[in-house]
Amino acid sequence: MSNYPKKVYLNDEVLDYQNAKISVFDRGFLFGDGVYEVITQINGRLFYGKEHLDRLSECLDKIHINFDTTTLSAKIEDLLTASDLSKQDSLIYIQVTRGVAPRKHSFPADTPPTFMMYVVPFELPDINNNNIRITTLPDYRWHRCDIKMTSLLGNVMANDHAAKQETHEAVFIRDGSVTEGSHSNIFFVKDGVVYTHPANEDILNGITRQIVIQLCNELNIKVIEKAVSEKDIAVMDEAFLTGTTTQVAAIKEIDTHQFYTDDNTGTVTRKLQQAYLTLKQKPCK
Amino acid sequence: MSNYPKKVYLNDEVLDYQNAKISVFDRGFLFGDGVYEVITQINGRLFYGKEHLDRLSECLDKIHINFDTTTLSAKIEDLLTASDLSKQDSLIYIQVTRGVAPRKHSFPADTPPTFMMYVVPFELPDINNNNIRITTLPDYRWHRCDIKMTSLLGNVMANDHAAKQETHEAVFIRDGSVTEGSHSNIFFVKDGVVYTHPANEDILNGITRQIVIQLCNELNIKVIEKAVSEKDIAVMDEAFLTGTTTQVAAIKEIDTHQFYTDDNTGTVTRKLQQAYLTLKQKPCK
Repeated sequence: MSNYPKKVYLNDEVLDYQNAKISVFDRGFLFGDGVYEVITQINGRLFYGKEHLDRLSECLDKIHINFDTTTLSAKIEDLLTASDLSKQDSLIYIQVTRGVAPRKHSFPADTPPTFMMYVVPFELPDINNNNIRITTLPDYRWHRCDIKMTSLLGNVMANDHAAKQETHEAVFIRDGSVTEGSHSNIFFVKDGVVYTHPANEDILNGITRQIVIQLCNELNIKVIEKAVSEKDIAVMDEAFLTGTTTQVAAIKEIDTHQFYTDDNTGTVTRKLQQAYLTLKQKPCK
Repeated sequence: MSNYPKKVYLNDEVLDYQNAKISVFDRGFLFGDGVYEVITQINGRLFYGKEHLDRLSECLDKIHINFDTTTLSAKIEDLLTASDLSKQDSLIYIQVTRGVAPRKHSFPADTPPTFMMYVVPFELPDINNNNIRITTLPDYRWHRCDIKMTSLLGNVMANDHAAKQETHEAVFIRDGSVTEGSHSNIFFVKDGVVYTHPANEDILNGITRQIVIQLCNELNIKVIEKAVSEKDIAVMDEAFLTGTTTQVAAIKEIDTHQFYTDDNTGTVTRKLQQAYLTLKQKPCK
């Protein structure tokens, strides 16, 4: 996702990306006052598209932006066509902000939201075999991480911190408990039982997180939605990240603790990676 | 500040406000990845302009945006002239973001920051006589409130909450202690002593906050930089807000607790309002 897309859907128009410009008075620019969603197209269909669009709708409700998401499926199709990506594996990015108004903290009345969407070609590997290294840091983000908002400075700073330490992701610790990554959820495995933080206001309830819990149920792997404490990381058998582009990624190392000394992947993690791959390969959801 | 300005300074150009447009790939729009500053021009000079520009520079350093603020004084002058506001009382808004790049959490290399600035006519009253009503709510914002960032969704949501309750400002409570307002600092007075939250990562160290502390010192009013606990609000004698546009504003009511039953203002608050007015009227700082 490191190139610009060909086209951008901005409000009612599909534009060349160079022409996709918004007013500096867009509240997305002035206040980070918006929410977003990322969806993959795999094998010619949106992968859990409905679930992503439903979450977008929920997040819009949570921050009181009145925007109709029911027209989005058709718009995604139009944009894929305009971008010559109808059948190709792609990543769809959607952002909705509170619209353009003179700067004032309180919400403007009768201002239409700004809608922005683009698509880029994006090939996911069958299985994410990058066994990854993690840095932890205190969770200094706000306390409504259930909202997938564009006010992401805390997340990008954490991500930069991880990059500077030559690790792949930053994972947050709040009040001694592991919450989630800067753009992923985190799971642990101990004695065959899977643990992950409960879906409350401390984490984003990732669609991939929900899929993985469902897969565990189908595979008769017990899941406990309970935060793992920082001090218990070292006694866990396995750990993995989940996310729309991360898929299911084995964690090799958290700070100084090594889960594996080589690039093997833990048994439960591998089983879930395989099950996730099977799900992607199904002709329809 | 509810009208659009005449002109906008965007990167190296002064544009009509309608033409001030940025790419949707600006990280200010995608991630709220920027900082800002608001300065007033009073009686033909920037009021504590140096202090505001120094803070902008500090905030840029904190989030690792490399932007030279030393050219800003000249640019402010140019923009005031272009906006026909050279000598008029005005409000100057400055925003710097991490610039335009394909969307990716980690910081892009070699991307020039985006600079945006505008000026609107803005007459401050001599003294802010709007004795105001406050709503408190849990401080769910992030834990780096010392950074004046544009990722402000938490603040605008709190402000909207206050507006819906027909109050003027939302004041946050973190771990039982009063921190600050959604766009102001808060002070209390008890037995002639002034209390305000220490300038740590839980609050923005407002320029007006610093001026008021200085004024207290000059007036031999004792200031203790210590957070007031929520349960002690009711035993305080006076309370007031400070901010660049708020100036020094007496608080009439916090939730159900009334400080005054009429529009009189407490003795210490009034003294500081008068001293602040004197400071504004000085020919130079």
